[in-house]
Amino acid sequence: MSILVLGTTALDTVTTPSGKREAMLGGSAVHFSMAARFFTQVNLVAIVGRDFPNKHIHFLLKKGINLTSLIVEEGRTFRWEGEYCGDLNTALTKRTELGVLSVFKPRVAESQRNIKNIFLANVDPDIQQRLLSHMRTPQLVGLDSMNYWIDHKRKSLLKLLKKVDIFVANDAEARSLSQETNLIKAAKCLRKMGSSIVVVKKGEHGVLVYCDDFLFSLPAYPIERIADPTGAGDTFAGGFMGYLAKVQKVNAKTMKKAICYGTIMASFNVEGFGVERSSRITKKDIDARLAHFKKMISF
Amino acid sequence: MSILVLGTTALDTVTTPSGKREAMLGGSAVHFSMAARFFTQVNLVAIVGRDFPNKHIHFLLKKGINLTSLIVEEGRTFRWEGEYCGDLNTALTKRTELGVLSVFKPRVAESQRNIKNIFLANVDPDIQQRLLSHMRTPQLVGLDSMNYWIDHKRKSLLKLLKKVDIFVANDAEARSLSQETNLIKAAKCLRKMGSSIVVVKKGEHGVLVYCDDFLFSLPAYPIERIADPTGAGDTFAGGFMGYLAKVQKVNAKTMKKAICYGTIMASFNVEGFGVERSSRITKKDIDARLAHFKKMISF
Repeated sequence: MSILVLGTTALDTVTTPSGKREAMLGGSAVHFSMAARFFTQVNLVAIVGRDFPNKHIHFLLKKGINLTSLIVEEGRTFRWEGEYCGDLNTALTKRTELGVLSVFKPRVAESQRNIKNIFLANVDPDIQQRLLSHMRTPQLVGLDSMNYWIDHKRKSLLKLLKKVDIFVANDAEARSLSQETNLIKAAKCLRKMGSSIVVVKKGEHGVLVYCDDFLFSLPAYPIERIADPTGAGDTFAGGFMGYLAKVQKVNAKTMKKAICYGTIMASFNVEGFGVERSSRITKKDIDARLAHFKKMISF
Repeated sequence: MSILVLGTTALDTVTTPSGKREAMLGGSAVHFSMAARFFTQVNLVAIVGRDFPNKHIHFLLKKGINLTSLIVEEGRTFRWEGEYCGDLNTALTKRTELGVLSVFKPRVAESQRNIKNIFLANVDPDIQQRLLSHMRTPQLVGLDSMNYWIDHKRKSLLKLLKKVDIFVANDAEARSLSQETNLIKAAKCLRKMGSSIVVVKKGEHGVLVYCDDFLFSLPAYPIERIADPTGAGDTFAGGFMGYLAKVQKVNAKTMKKAICYGTIMASFNVEGFGVERSSRITKKDIDARLAHFKKMISF
């Protein structure tokens, strides 16, 4: 079954030890879509300005992403500029230009309002809530957020958490929202806040998953040459939610496989700047790496 | 086949959010032995002072540890006092009293000089080198160290690295010695320094293993209630080296299982202060947790 993702479509300027790229295609909804497209039909809900290059629209359409609900508004596209140093785990934000994102009111085309699988990538929780209220029969809803909203829109976020099935957070966010340092305690606390499944992303250290029925952690796929970690979390979510949308079943087995697909998609993503690498891989590449990952962790 | 471990036998005073214990039995050789004893005959080489409680000697003997080469010297036993706060990942050393450790010259009983499996737990690399020179037919030699020696006895450590088979380091040590931030690059760099197998311990995030023939990472066993992380790394090494000494074969399969045993042993160790928990478990407990771990990471 198809999936709908709400998030940002951005122009990113990124500097890492591997180099610099200016105003390249990025944003949470884009990274998510580039991964999820391998598993299901992806419908992107986002906003861009008139300055958004046509070539990016063509690129996304060519990759099979449905852009019916991508709003093109007067103004400038959301832009982010960041730099990664040292261990590449943390981005230093150098500039953020919200542009049209500051007036974003998501609209979902009539034909898309019955989509059952939904991912609310990182935007203002009020916008995430508004999108969710447009959907007629949400069945599996995933949510991502960030420290800024945890600090500034905690109330809205907590309200939203009660309406979603899967909460995806990185370790710092999980700790911050739960006020627990031990990640298992943090995940249990987040579970009590509403979503029945909590997925804690630990970057190069892998993922921890908690729900009432199971708890497990898996390592990341080891990557030596990381070109650009931007979008790794959204790419992970894309592979993860895309696979769940495809199999339409949530249990320990499918969750584990979904996490593995997310892990593999993220491992490709970080090997290139922006969506450079994700745009060139095939399902065969993905399955070959998944098989290697499976072999790596089995004993 | 039996194993010989060189390291410290200490009296630890530890404070964690779970409480405080004064002058309890600790030290790298003790934690190592308490894990390795489940897999093979363990011979401990260390030094203690006259103040070392007899009950600890009886305890170790009762656990089957061979203490023939434990020196009891005039003076005070090595004492360490530390505190863990927050996420329990880092110990704050409050006091170190070297005592008899400052005059430690390891002696190996004649009957133990033919032991083929050796683990050089964290002490001065010159002492580790001296011990190694006593051994007649070393076959599988593991080495642990710490940042202090990397900074202050780099030359001795680099020389020793060429003589060992397995180098076990935590992530900070691996980065510091290799001057690489990416852990895979760090492991490859350490490999070039001598030891054919590099094991990078990442605490709650698991382990990364690198050698010419394979590269893999495994998560830690998720533990919610960590009482005291002291000795987790040595316990890991004990399970890991103990298993390898038992099977007497080093390949991808045995390495993975050895890493898993190390992981499981460390997960028990952190559930209690000092060796409280490690001293009470049985092989059945270990194998039950190993089976659960295996199930957790298979998909």
